[in-house]
Parts: sequence; C-alpha cells; structure tokens
Amino acid sequence: MTAPQLPAGHPLVTDDATRSTARSALITALRGGTPDRRPVWFMRQAGRSLPEYRQLREGISMLDSCLQPELASEITLQPVRRHDVDAGIFFSDIVIPLRLAEVGVDIVPGVGPVLDAPVRTAADVAALPELTEESLEPIREAVRLTVAELGSTPLIGFAGAPFTLAAYMVEGKPSRDHLGPRTMMHAEPDTWNALASWAARASGHFLRAQIEAGASAGQLFDSWAGSLSLGDYLTHVQPHSAAAFAQVADLAGPDGVPLIHFGTGTSEILPAMRDAGASAVGVDYRLPLDEAHRRLTATPGADGRGAVPLQGNIDPALLEAGWDVLEAHVRGVIEAGSVAPGHVLNLGHGVPPHTDPTVLTRVVELIHSVAP
Amino acid sequence: MTAPQLPAGHPLVTDDATRSTARSALITALRGGTPDRRPVWFMRQAGRSLPEYRQLREGISMLDSCLQPELASEITLQPVRRHDVDAGIFFSDIVIPLRLAEVGVDIVPGVGPVLDAPVRTAADVAALPELTEESLEPIREAVRLTVAELGSTPLIGFAGAPFTLAAYMVEGKPSRDHLGPRTMMHAEPDTWNALASWAARASGHFLRAQIEAGASAGQLFDSWAGSLSLGDYLTHVQPHSAAAFAQVADLAGPDGVPLIHFGTGTSEILPAMRDAGASAVGVDYRLPLDEAHRRLTATPGADGRGAVPLQGNIDPALLEAGWDVLEAHVRGVIEAGSVAPGHVLNLGHGVPPHTDPTVLTRVVELIHSVAP
Repeated sequence: MTAPQLPAGHPLVTDDATRSTARSALITALRGGTPDRRPVWFMRQAGRSLPEYRQLREGISMLDSCLQPELASEITLQPVRRHDVDAGIFFSDIVIPLRLAEVGVDIVPGVGPVLDAPVRTAADVAALPELTEESLEPIREAVRLTVAELGSTPLIGFAGAPFTLAAYMVEGKPSRDHLGPRTMMHAEPDTWNALASWAARASGHFLRAQIEAGASAGQLFDSWAGSLSLGDYLTHVQPHSAAAFAQVADLAGPDGVPLIHFGTGTSEILPAMRDAGASAVGVDYRLPLDEAHRRLTATPGADGRGAVPLQGNIDPALLEAGWDVLEAHVRGVIEAGSVAPGHVLNLGHGVPPHTDPTVLTRVVELIHSVAP
Repeated sequence: MTAPQLPAGHPLVTDDATRSTARSALITALRGGTPDRRPVWFMRQAGRSLPEYRQLREGISMLDSCLQPELASEITLQPVRRHDVDAGIFFSDIVIPLRLAEVGVDIVPGVGPVLDAPVRTAADVAALPELTEESLEPIREAVRLTVAELGSTPLIGFAGAPFTLAAYMVEGKPSRDHLGPRTMMHAEPDTWNALASWAARASGHFLRAQIEAGASAGQLFDSWAGSLSLGDYLTHVQPHSAAAFAQVADLAGPDGVPLIHFGTGTSEILPAMRDAGASAVGVDYRLPLDEAHRRLTATPGADGRGAVPLQGNIDPALLEAGWDVLEAHVRGVIEAGSVAPGHVLNLGHGVPPHTDPTVLTRVVELIHSVAP
C-alpha cells in the first residue's frame, strides 16, 4: 500500500510535534499499536447532555448549528475540554449532506429528521441534486477551526452510512422497522441502488471534506444496519458502504487516516462491516468485545483480515446505575477489549440526553487510570 | 411427564372429532409431527390491516375493544375467516393485564401504551395490585366464544413477556432503547426482580385464563428482548419468563398445550428463550431458520433439548415487494424451515398496518399449496 496523500499540514503528517496527532492514544490504538493511555471518547459526547451545549444552542435549530463553523467547532470542542476525552467527534448530523445538497430536510424536535418529500421513485432519485465542493466549505471551515484548537488531540470525521441516510430519505422520517427502504431494495433494486449510490457519494464526499480539512480519523455511522439480515446487508448495503469508504481510501491505509464503522444491533454483520473497508469496527453494548473479536477472527475477509481494532462498548444504561456497578462494567469492557489488536473505549450507543456529564468525566478518569 | 390436566371439553382433549384441535396442522407441527398441510398464521393478523376490523373498532378505544368479549372474539375470528389461516391469535394487548389489575394505562394513538404513572421505585412496585381471577372473566368469555366458532381451528393464547411488560411500566411509554428497565436491573436488582416477578405473575395468569377457557396453544411475546445482551437476558429476564411459563406448565408437555416464545432481534438469545420453557421458538425476519436451527441444535439446554419446532419468518418488508419477489422469499423460508423438527409459517414480525390483506390471503394459499 502506498503512503496516503494527506494534505500538507494535516495533523497526521506534520513535523510539528506539538500538533501532530500521529502519536495520540486514539490513532495509535486504531493502528494496532500500544498507546500511552487507553483512548476513550463517547458517541454523542457533543450535545444534549452538556449544559454548555444547551446554552449555546438556545434559539438556533439543530441543522443551522451544524452549518455555522464557529458554533459547530465550539460544540465539538466542549466535551474534549470538559471530559479530557482522547478525540473530538465532529458535531454534525446524518442528514447534513442532504441539507448541503439543497434537499428539503429539517430536524423536528421530539421526532428527528423529516424531509419535505420522501424519495421513493426512480424519478425522485434522478432528481436529487449532487453535493457540490462549494457547499462543503462551512464543514471544512469548522474542521479547520477545530483542529487548530485541538492540537495533538485528534478529530474524528463524522458521516452517516448510505443505508441509514437512504432509510431516512425513503421513509421521509425516522421509523422503527425501516420497511420502506427494505421493501425498495427487493422490489425496485435499480431504484434502491441509484439512491444508495447517491447516498454513498454524499457520505463519502462529506467525510472526505472533513479529512482533507484536518480530521485524523473518520467514522461511518450505520445506525439502522441492525434492521437488516446478513443476506440483505451483503447484497444491498455493503457495496454502498464500501463505495463511501472508497472515496477516502487514498487518505487511509496503515499510515493514513483510520476508518471506523459503527452500527447498532450488528452482531450478525460485524465481519461484513469490516469488509466494507473499515480499519476498525465499533460494537454496540449487546455483544461482549471478546466475542466480537472471536467472530471477526473466525471470519476473515477476502483481503485476509480477521481481527481488527475494536471500539466500544460501555452500556449507556449503566451510566445511571451507580458508580460501583458502572466501574465494574467499565473494567469488564476493558478486559474483554484487551484481546483485540487495538481497543478504543466508547459507549455501545450514544450518550443518553439526560446523562449526568460528571459521570462521563469520571469514566474517562477511570479508563485513563488503567495502564494500557 | 404426566398428562396435562386440561379442563373437560378443552379443544385439545375432546372426543368430538369435529371440534378437536389436536389433529390440526398447527398443533401437529408444534408437537414435531407431520401435519396434513403447512400451518401458517400471522402475528397481528387481527387488526389494522383489515377493513372489517377498522369498521368494527370505530369509536371504540383499543383497550376497551379487548375487554368486550363479543368484540374481541369477532376481531379474533375475522382473519381466520378471511385468510384461512391455521390458527386464531387471541386479540388483546400486552398491557391488558395492567388494565385488568386496575393500573392506569391507555393506548394513545400514534404513540402506544402510556401509563398514568411510571413504576420506578420499590414503593411503586409494592403498591401494584395483583390481577384477580374475577377480573379475567371478560378474557375467558371472549376465548369461549371464539373457540366455539373456531371449531377444529386452534386458538393461540396471547401474553406479553415479563421484560416487555415491565419495560412499558418503567418507561411509562414506548421507548427505543429501554434504558429505564435496563438501568433498573443493574442499579436496583431487588426492585427489578420484584417488578418482573409481578409482571411474570400477571403474564402467566393472563395466559392461563386463556388456555383454561379453550386456547390450544400459547405465545409469549417478548417484543423488546432484542435490546438485551445475552448476559443480561440470562441473569435478569429469563428467570421471569420461565416463571410466566411455569404457571401453565401443568397444561403443557407433549400431549398438552404447545408454548411459543417470540421476540425481535433475538439471534443471540434463541437458546435462552427456548430454555425459559418454550416448546417452540419464534424467529424474527433477520435470521434464516436453518441458521436458527443450527444454533439451537449446537446449544442444548440443561434439559438436553436442542432443536425445537420453529415459527417464522417471512420478512414483513417483502409483503409489498411484488408477488414474484414475495413468492420466492416464502418458498425460501419454507425450505430453510424444513430442517427444523416442526415449522409454523408466520411473519418475522407483525403485519404492517398498511398491508394489502389480499396479499396475505395469497401467501396462505401459496403455503398450503406446498406439500408438507
């Protein structure tokens, strides 16, 4: 594999030791090395659990806040300052690429993303505008501001995976069973493939903009992938997730930007998620990490890769279960994850909105207190 | 195992050949025999997909309709008449035992079950009223009316499993992640066990009333069990599901009432669901039945049972995918299920509300056309 073509001054390649993220705990663990401390960050660490976030967001809609570079940057930085986590996760939303492409969408409080019109026919898909380079400038600017502040702490780029993005587009809103997209992939496979290809281009483009602007890693969130059988995932989804990853593959590789792939309820599809082109796999709270490692090892991909670094998987339900219970659980997760060739501590799903943030800070302190 | 003590005149033991359900396709398949046709029914077959149901329900709330014996019976019978399915499923709701115990609860349209007050503390649990024999009379009456009409077609009794019922009680409403009950089982295990024990008594009592009144099988619905890790299921849930089943164990056994255990997203816990005391396991649409069979066989319970009859698992998303796609899928499910010691065709989740009922009728015809 050739060295990745990261832009000049990118945090992963700069010679400035005070700024480089290459030796950070996160990047070291994601490359399978031994970090100087156990890296930890939390999905949804930037957001509703922080009073400073709720204050900053007052009077500003969710999607608007993602597109104001200073605001998105500040929100991204808040949990890094507060918790001493080992990475920032770029503050954004899965449907931001839709908004940037001028597809009508908004986040309705208490509901989630709602589209002006669902995307259900071949004509609907053909009419979708492509995401332009120019539209991504607020994203790049927010990333530049953020990495300048973060210094040697890496920023993780954020993008929704094609299935999850397309699921919102077909349903027009959140749903429990994702019947619309799951019907479409069987009933109208050409329409589905056109839509999922659009979503893969949008996701990959969105992620690439963040990495080029200075993100040191990337994570593809396939929130709803657990609603699929392995067969449906392999046939109708994995190729599109692979297409999204392929758009940043030249920036990845052993010396480049690590790519994490996460979904919930994915115990049946973890090897398939790895094989979409991920350097590391995020595991939800339901499957112990040693069992995830065993399955990945037992099912190598066509490229021969079996075990990969894992991310996860503290149960968010235990954040409110009292410290003794939580500490024992976190220590159990550390032990189970130690069998993997690299382990980034995280939750096995996002931070619940009502979480006491002081508990998260204490979890970080605990994790950092356990020698790597 | 001793012969079950079914009440005199129960459809499974009556000598009247025109009324007995013992030789029905459903009971035969659930006992591991070869039925004269492949049995099929659909979860939520009684309900919103049928125009005759929507007409009957006009002006009557969901829970009220469950408690008017003539109405509940008629709703239960509608899909049997229309589709020629091999069983009725008793029309009810998971929270009916709460209503019967005079716990304040209602079904809010578009939301689901909402309790007047969530059940979150030891005092809340201690204050729960027990379900009485008398309160169950409308249920018994509806079952008696139904089995009299069904004749040799068996009625399946319905009950929510303790975890799913308790999850509604702790959250006070439907939730996606069930954080409340999942926190409680770790933070306050005594409170959790008291609550889940209450729910197990209510579920078991509710199911027993239906069987005593003439239901020929029973199904425990653990809709949310897939939100649990195997470890949490085994420690905090399985004992309570076993307690619910234990309340009807004397009516079950090889010559008695078969007991089916169903949940969604349960690929990791299928053997544990069997071992709670089920005769058969329902599998959701995500796991192929031959793989479910392989896992059950590979992981026998303490009683030595490995493979058991399976129920499932047509993907509800394919009901709208066009007949050719659906027919191929149904034939695939039949083939995969043929490895099990018995197979009852069903969906891998409930009938979606907007399903065209003529498609369901055609699926039944297809299944009955394939020789067993």
